Amino acid sequence: MSKSLSSKRRSRSSGQLITLLTDFGTSDYFAGAMKGVILAINPAAQLVDITHDIPAQDIQCAAFNLLAIYGSFPAGSINVAVVDPGVGSMRRPILVCAREQFFVGPDNGIFSYVLDREPDARIFELKNKKYFRRQVSNTFHGRDIFAPVAAALSKGTPPSKFGAAITDPVRLASLNPLKLKNGDWEGRVIHIDHFGNCITSFTQSDITQRMIDGGAVLRINGREFREFRQFYAEDGQTGLRSQMSNFKAQRSKLFAVWGSAGFLEIAARNQSAAKLLKAKRDDRIICRTGV
Amino acid sequence: MSKSLSSKRRSRSSGQLITLLTDFGTSDYFAGAMKGVILAINPAAQLVDITHDIPAQDIQCAAFNLLAIYGSFPAGSINVAVVDPGVGSMRRPILVCAREQFFVGPDNGIFSYVLDREPDARIFELKNKKYFRRQVSNTFHGRDIFAPVAAALSKGTPPSKFGAAITDPVRLASLNPLKLKNGDWEGRVIHIDHFGNCITSFTQSDITQRMIDGGAVLRINGREFREFRQFYAEDGQTGLRSQMSNFKAQRSKLFAVWGSAGFLEIAARNQSAAKLLKAKRDDRIICRTGV
Amino acid sequence: MSKSLSSKRRSRSSGQLITLLTDFGTSDYFAGAMKGVILAINPAAQLVDITHDIPAQDIQCAAFNLLAIYGSFPAGSINVAVVDPGVGSMRRPILVCAREQFFVGPDNGIFSYVLDREPDARIFELKNKKYFRRQVSNTFHGRDIFAPVAAALSKGTPPSKFGAAITDPVRLASLNPLKLKNGDWEGRVIHIDHFGNCITSFTQSDITQRMIDGGAVLRINGREFREFRQFYAEDGQTGLRSQMSNFKAQRSKLFAVWGSAGFLEIAARNQSAAKLLKAKRDDRIICRTGV
Repeated sequence: MSKSLSSKRRSRSSGQLITLLTDFGTSDYFAGAMKGVILAINPAAQLVDITHDIPAQDIQCAAFNLLAIYGSFPAGSINVAVVDPGVGSMRRPILVCAREQFFVGPDNGIFSYVLDREPDARIFELKNKKYFRRQVSNTFHGRDIFAPVAAALSKGTPPSKFGAAITDPVRLASLNPLKLKNGDWEGRVIHIDHFGNCITSFTQSDITQRMIDGGAVLRINGREFREFRQFYAEDGQTGLRSQMSNFKAQRSKLFAVWGSAGFLEIAARNQSAAKLLKAKRDDRIICRTGV
Repeated sequence: MSKSLSSKRRSRSSGQLITLLTDFGTSDYFAGAMKGVILAINPAAQLVDITHDIPAQDIQCAAFNLLAIYGSFPAGSINVAVVDPGVGSMRRPILVCAREQFFVGPDNGIFSYVLDREPDARIFELKNKKYFRRQVSNTFHGRDIFAPVAAALSKGTPPSKFGAAITDPVRLASLNPLKLKNGDWEGRVIHIDHFGNCITSFTQSDITQRMIDGGAVLRINGREFREFRQFYAEDGQTGLRSQMSNFKAQRSKLFAVWGSAGFLEIAARNQSAAKLLKAKRDDRIICRTGV
Repeated sequence: MSKSLSSKRRSRSSGQLITLLTDFGTSDYFAGAMKGVILAINPAAQLVDITHDIPAQDIQCAAFNLLAIYGSFPAGSINVAVVDPGVGSMRRPILVCAREQFFVGPDNGIFSYVLDREPDARIFELKNKKYFRRQVSNTFHGRDIFAPVAAALSKGTPPSKFGAAITDPVRLASLNPLKLKNGDWEGRVIHIDHFGNCITSFTQSDITQRMIDGGAVLRINGREFREFRQFYAEDGQTGLRSQMSNFKAQRSKLFAVWGSAGFLEIAARNQSAAKLLKAKRDDRIICRTGV
């Protein structure tokens, strides 16, 4: 009786929630094949597509999206992330356990930003073929390794069963902005979203409200502006702290806003800021605070 | 025993079905974050993506798709719709209860066409922060307000708990065609679908079979034709009621067909009617019935 | 008690897994409407999107993706495939039972490649209107016939209830390569994937390892190369069996690799092979083995 109850509770728990993030696109069978493999092993798994539209082989973009989303998922979630240009090579398949969640994918930096935030994470190399698909292809570890491992995890297999712990995962360059000698901050564009907003690497620990109130100025791709808004639709004229800094910015209506992932975003009212700025990821942005 | 049965029934019921319709695209974490928030609150919710590819900030397109789809969902469904250019501003977050379904999203007209069809709908402003995410951003109410409210609804929270009833929701212009003085009908293109079919605002209460049999002629963007087909692949030569009205239409194979959302569509055999017609949404279409 | 147990098992079994593959795109309500209809009939169904991005009306592309994926799904899966230019016409709606799975869709060749592999498949024409939507449109059988039939199947309705068995389904040209008089093999490009890899019709029963070791040469669109790799990221210089065959191939880094669907793929390191080759589906590829 109590066993039945506990198994029922488990079947409803978020331990069976498996998210998928890939660069597979949505026009092929790839993502579907992963889903089939998972559900064949654990029919009770609850699958959630995060995105399959990461630009092909863009590990950094995948890493950013994982960073931005994992806090929204409950403890026990299993996040499978497959952007894997090195599939079939010596790059290791890994499992990361961090903040009561699991991350499954290639060891190529894709979990790097999560690891930066979660110093207590434990990492395991996926070596135990018992949990792989019977026949592992050299071209599709998403289906043949990561999906079945995620399914096994969702059924309660302890992380250590998959392989030995490792401590040297591949890391991307840190997202942390630099404090320059003159007191300015140097950050960069770390993501450009669907609406053309440019997400920068600045967080509220870098750019404080005091700096903003003190007249901090942002400079990117030859444009300068000092408007910080509370939200996208805030009117430039009526915003509490909004002051146009120069004619150029006024014309183009660029402004900064704290975005939903905790980073400062450069946006433009009803337009793509990225287009206005001809911005690309990794473009440098300076915050002059010593005015 | 009976309690267990009823809770089991509830857990399988469609009351836990939550649909998502947004303009977030599929290349960012946005839709995924909403899913995470919902499943963290109600792991038993069944999530259904309607679309995340509404053109950015296109409220009218979202409103049309909601209108076209809600009849396919069972009683108890919770439809979350987020096309929200005014996020963070004074625009109200609302809950609409209509035809035994729920609609959650911003008060900007997105539920307007559903409200036109459901005069008995009740509307509540979402004010009770108890049901919001702990920290509400100014840029992502989809994750911070609409998702947790939908999750609370799916767990049985009564609508009135979220805030007071309102009676003045934002409305879009009605879809109803106009009857002109000469007896013709004037409608417009209300949607262009993935295949290039132009969905018009004409319904079978405007254009009757008697009018069609009587030789009704359609005029749009300088083209005239009078072919009404039963289905897309019907051959112009063999169709029961199909008669080419003029050379232009014959060349371009334009025809009208009753579409699956209950509106008259302008289509073209194996081609995009929208391209042939250079049609855009809101283009005027005339139905001459007095011939 | 035992009844409750068995019904519980069934509710968790993969018999309720319903996959969707269409050319509906993701910007309209079409796929969502199918989901609503299915869940209204069987709230316990587990829906899995394979893709809705099959190019409009491209039956062959849909047939390939079905072929590539069905082996990843468990017994009992119900695969709904709707690429249906003939909707509303005399083309038959059918149900295919093959390898303990179900396939529901139009009789236009979409299940052709699966049928080629599954000679024991049974096929039924969907005729019993009892299992259709109350009102069947002439433009959207996905919602009005295929979705409700899949839902009924998922609730245990036996295949024969839907209509009589048929033995003459529409078939596409076989994928099998031709053995030419001089011993060479002639195949074709059967799919181009999201990454630009060209999937050919060659399988390991056509091109054996002995042929590859013996120096088999591939010729497509005026290019010749003989590099066979183990995986995409394999370095041309270090690969076990990789030998550059000529300067052109070296420049463009074309190579062949056994892909995850069991077919030989033409790929290019970190580039789109399809772009390099200006390849389209159905392009001819020759494997010269008699060197």
